[in-house]
Amino acid sequence: MAAERDPEGLAAARPLLTDLYQATMALGYWRAGRARDAAEFELFFRRCPFGGAFALAAGLRDCMRFLRAFRLRDAGSPPHPTGAPIPRAPHALREPPPREPPTPDGRPHPTNVQFLASVLPPDTDPAFFEHLRALDCSEVTVRALPEGSLAFPGVPLLQVSGPLLVVQLLETPLLCLVSYASLVATNAARLRLIAGPEKRLLEMGLRRAQGPDGGLTASTYSYLGGFDSSSNVLAGQLRGVPVAGTLAHSFITSFSGSELPPDPMLAPAAGEGPGVDLAAKAQVWLERVCAHLGLGLQEPHPGERAAFVAYALAFPRAFQGLLDSYSVRRSGLPNFLAVSLALGELGYRAVGVRLDSGDLLQQAQEIRQVFRTIAAQFQVPWLESVPIAVSNNIDEEALAQLAQEGSEVNVIGIGTSVVTCPQQPSLGCVYKLVAVGGQPRMKLTEDPEKQTLPGSKAAFRLLGSDGSLLMDVLQLAEEPVPQAGQELRVWPRGAQEPCTVRPAQVEPLLRLCLQQGQLCEPLPSLAESRALAQLSLSQLSPAHRRLWNPAQYQVVLSERLQALVDSLRVGASP
Amino acid sequence: MAAERDPEGLAAARPLLTDLYQATMALGYWRAGRARDAAEFELFFRRCPFGGAFALAAGLRDCMRFLRAFRLRDAGSPPHPTGAPIPRAPHALREPPPREPPTPDGRPHPTNVQFLASVLPPDTDPAFFEHLRALDCSEVTVRALPEGSLAFPGVPLLQVSGPLLVVQLLETPLLCLVSYASLVATNAARLRLIAGPEKRLLEMGLRRAQGPDGGLTASTYSYLGGFDSSSNVLAGQLRGVPVAGTLAHSFITSFSGSELPPDPMLAPAAGEGPGVDLAAKAQVWLERVCAHLGLGLQEPHPGERAAFVAYALAFPRAFQGLLDSYSVRRSGLPNFLAVSLALGELGYRAVGVRLDSGDLLQQAQEIRQVFRTIAAQFQVPWLESVPIAVSNNIDEEALAQLAQEGSEVNVIGIGTSVVTCPQQPSLGCVYKLVAVGGQPRMKLTEDPEKQTLPGSKAAFRLLGSDGSLLMDVLQLAEEPVPQAGQELRVWPRGAQEPCTVRPAQVEPLLRLCLQQGQLCEPLPSLAESRALAQLSLSQLSPAHRRLWNPAQYQVVLSERLQALVDSLRVGASP
Repeated sequence: MAAERDPEGLAAARPLLTDLYQATMALGYWRAGRARDAAEFELFFRRCPFGGAFALAAGLRDCMRFLRAFRLRDAGSPPHPTGAPIPRAPHALREPPPREPPTPDGRPHPTNVQFLASVLPPDTDPAFFEHLRALDCSEVTVRALPEGSLAFPGVPLLQVSGPLLVVQLLETPLLCLVSYASLVATNAARLRLIAGPEKRLLEMGLRRAQGPDGGLTASTYSYLGGFDSSSNVLAGQLRGVPVAGTLAHSFITSFSGSELPPDPMLAPAAGEGPGVDLAAKAQVWLERVCAHLGLGLQEPHPGERAAFVAYALAFPRAFQGLLDSYSVRRSGLPNFLAVSLALGELGYRAVGVRLDSGDLLQQAQEIRQVFRTIAAQFQVPWLESVPIAVSNNIDEEALAQLAQEGSEVNVIGIGTSVVTCPQQPSLGCVYKLVAVGGQPRMKLTEDPEKQTLPGSKAAFRLLGSDGSLLMDVLQLAEEPVPQAGQELRVWPRGAQEPCTVRPAQVEPLLRLCLQQGQLCEPLPSLAESRALAQLSLSQLSPAHRRLWNPAQYQVVLSERLQALVDSLRVGASP
Repeated sequence: MAAERDPEGLAAARPLLTDLYQATMALGYWRAGRARDAAEFELFFRRCPFGGAFALAAGLRDCMRFLRAFRLRDAGSPPHPTGAPIPRAPHALREPPPREPPTPDGRPHPTNVQFLASVLPPDTDPAFFEHLRALDCSEVTVRALPEGSLAFPGVPLLQVSGPLLVVQLLETPLLCLVSYASLVATNAARLRLIAGPEKRLLEMGLRRAQGPDGGLTASTYSYLGGFDSSSNVLAGQLRGVPVAGTLAHSFITSFSGSELPPDPMLAPAAGEGPGVDLAAKAQVWLERVCAHLGLGLQEPHPGERAAFVAYALAFPRAFQGLLDSYSVRRSGLPNFLAVSLALGELGYRAVGVRLDSGDLLQQAQEIRQVFRTIAAQFQVPWLESVPIAVSNNIDEEALAQLAQEGSEVNVIGIGTSVVTCPQQPSLGCVYKLVAVGGQPRMKLTEDPEKQTLPGSKAAFRLLGSDGSLLMDVLQLAEEPVPQAGQELRVWPRGAQEPCTVRPAQVEPLLRLCLQQGQLCEPLPSLAESRALAQLSLSQLSPAHRRLWNPAQYQVVLSERLQALVDSLRVGASP
């Protein structure tokens, strides 16, 4: 797999990736003299997506890129007014922020701060905008669930601390970068669980995504969640996702059969001996194939065959056929066989067929059967196992069909269902203030589901002696770490009584990623995060991993955290 | 509204915004000597989204930006190998393509062509890559439905003609840029129809979008479809969308009430006379309000009131209250009233309240009632009509409730339901070859819904004498234009018999946008496209505009087009 080549990502070029009310709140904090109050926010979700009992944490790499590059001052504007150099992290990315192209009339863009000034009250104190020009993330610290970890309701995916004004401004970008990434990674993980480990899963949803960057995010995090590859070339170029893909119907229908290739000759695979006219050889094979299949020689479409020959001339070692432009049984399949057998004579082996309409499972069984009889008839054993790929609006239910015992489908292309997550197209992450000036904060709205858990917290995952996950514990940051083998009293959320648990292992969940603006360690590669996701899923008990009506995984509070919640609730009562 | 400031858009920086199979097909065409065959593709959808009978065409501006900038050659690589200068359009955008930042280790990125070479067979003829390096859209012509037009099944949103290889490569980018834009514009138009013309609709879904660019697309095209504004600052900065937004719960909960603002004094609105301590004045008003409402003076949360005072000090002319951090009735509302009445004494008027949980309609009625009694009690008539804004997972059904006769809700914020289009999160546009080398082409798959309409076509909208839309006609490009007042024989799709129609007006649907790579006219502004969308919707009959179980709008074929379809079907039969 290639290295990632898009270190900053698109988001990093957009420091104003935010909602207006964060800018208005920034002015509110500043006017109240609270811009630099120490604050901590947590980013989490309240319910697992898709009716399941787990989610995968993802999007952290995009967040780190955004935070490292975050600066409202424009590239050309004066440096930090204190004159202090911008701190450089050991793993800092060295390039300058990408520049916007100028406007069509040649004027430079308004700077970020100029734009904010244009939408805030005209009599706003200029010192506020000076404050914004000096902003960066050099005082921001982030702890996070590593990408590919299992995430559960209420457990922070990110803990973000720093000056109140700046960490408030980060709300929307962090939500935007984490929510969809985690949703699509979780969706991909579900599809992988349904498909089982053997089927190859190809993501092909770029055209159905929310624009180019939506597609890039979808491809990146579908791979992280368990897909094998993507058709999205940008995801290969910029993120190192393995890319795959063959041909579409327009290639087939663009040929009538009357075209004359400039060079119809193909040399043998071994490179020795004279070349042969592939089209002529395919014609010879077509007669044998049609005779064997009981088809008239005129039935297979000549344009489709010409397209296959053209594709085989371009990709003799990677020939694939898309079979359903005209008729699979009467045209696509015999044409594919004729060209494949002609290639086979020259020592090349076709690498696959694809179906994009009709009853995919049934057709795959029939095609495999034809492959077997042709392989036996013409002594070409490799033909038996040519992979069969299918696509066409495949969702979880259709995938379960295609992955069933005895299915002859090998490769499954999924577009819309993976990138748009139609079962639930948003994860609903929130970003909530938990402490300010060292004091815990809690939202006590009358809607119990919207109440938050106060205070700066630590999170641990408790495991049983067999390595399976028992529950996650949230506790106050200053509490001692739970010890393996020791009994712990904890409060399930919403329970009236505590319960006890004796974990065989205890794993800390949140990892220090960014400390005072400095990246603490290099980001793992996408492939490493993908491996972590598969490992994490394997540790989940079958009851929690089940995709429909699973057992709910418990997230519990320490006694001290529960006591803090209770005291803040009582304190708020009139 | 500000001008658009992002002429190239994010996509324009990404010429490899494509699927791998388009690159493999490009090699196939090239190897077959067909790279420069004249080809025409159409981009259309097969079914209207959301169970409605219409869609809005959108995304054209992004397509034009992409096509103008499209070049696989990298900025630093040698020019067109023929030495010919790249043609410049009269409305060309003058800036160089944006550059990618270098990789973290300082190496330059692989060029686009280098990346493609790395994923194509290693023995690919280098002349193919030379061909790619010379590619641009200088031979591409595009006709399109103007942005904001009504679009119906099978009617092309785009007709793209040019050399086969390059117009094939454009498949995924054009689908990616049109599909979601049209989907979200249509979704926004539906929400506007439900809300009626008076309610203000605010899009606030950035955090739920597919990454930053998904959010930018969503905000841009929600506005085009009929929303009034967006909370997305980038959409304001880069696209000129009006931005709006106030404050969030974290601002409220960050205040305990013990904070001391550095400057609690506020001068009167008229600018004359001494300033007053706003917090102290609000405290005085709180006593009167609580007495009037029968509340204890300790019930309203002091932190919430401090937050309101801080916000009012920053935005005395734009004070809004978010009422549900603690308790709307017992805390948010009396605190808002106290601060508003204090502001009112100084000549300022509060501009709104927002509710984000609970029964929004019911609460709005109660709050309006309190506004009325307080307005009467304290002789502040302006308070009666302070706008009430609501948000919290509002979908079509909830919106219909909030927009009902007698509702006191004035502003409705919608996030997830507008940007993710949960009723149907993708439009399913396709891009199909209709002609190559002047010959019509048709996909004749056994799945009737996936069959295409062959040939280079023109499209017209027929209107009745009252200006209402009758039907759309597709015909071959060379046929004479239908004449107003003359009877026309046409074939409804799938019908066994033709029917006749006598239109009072005939409007050509497809507009020449890009001719041989040259932009034919400046793009309309986003506000102009938004106005066209509202005008177009008003021309649709109520039966077609109805959102649930509408009458289907007819798209018909000319007799000659129908005859061509029939002849190609027969020709393909064995």
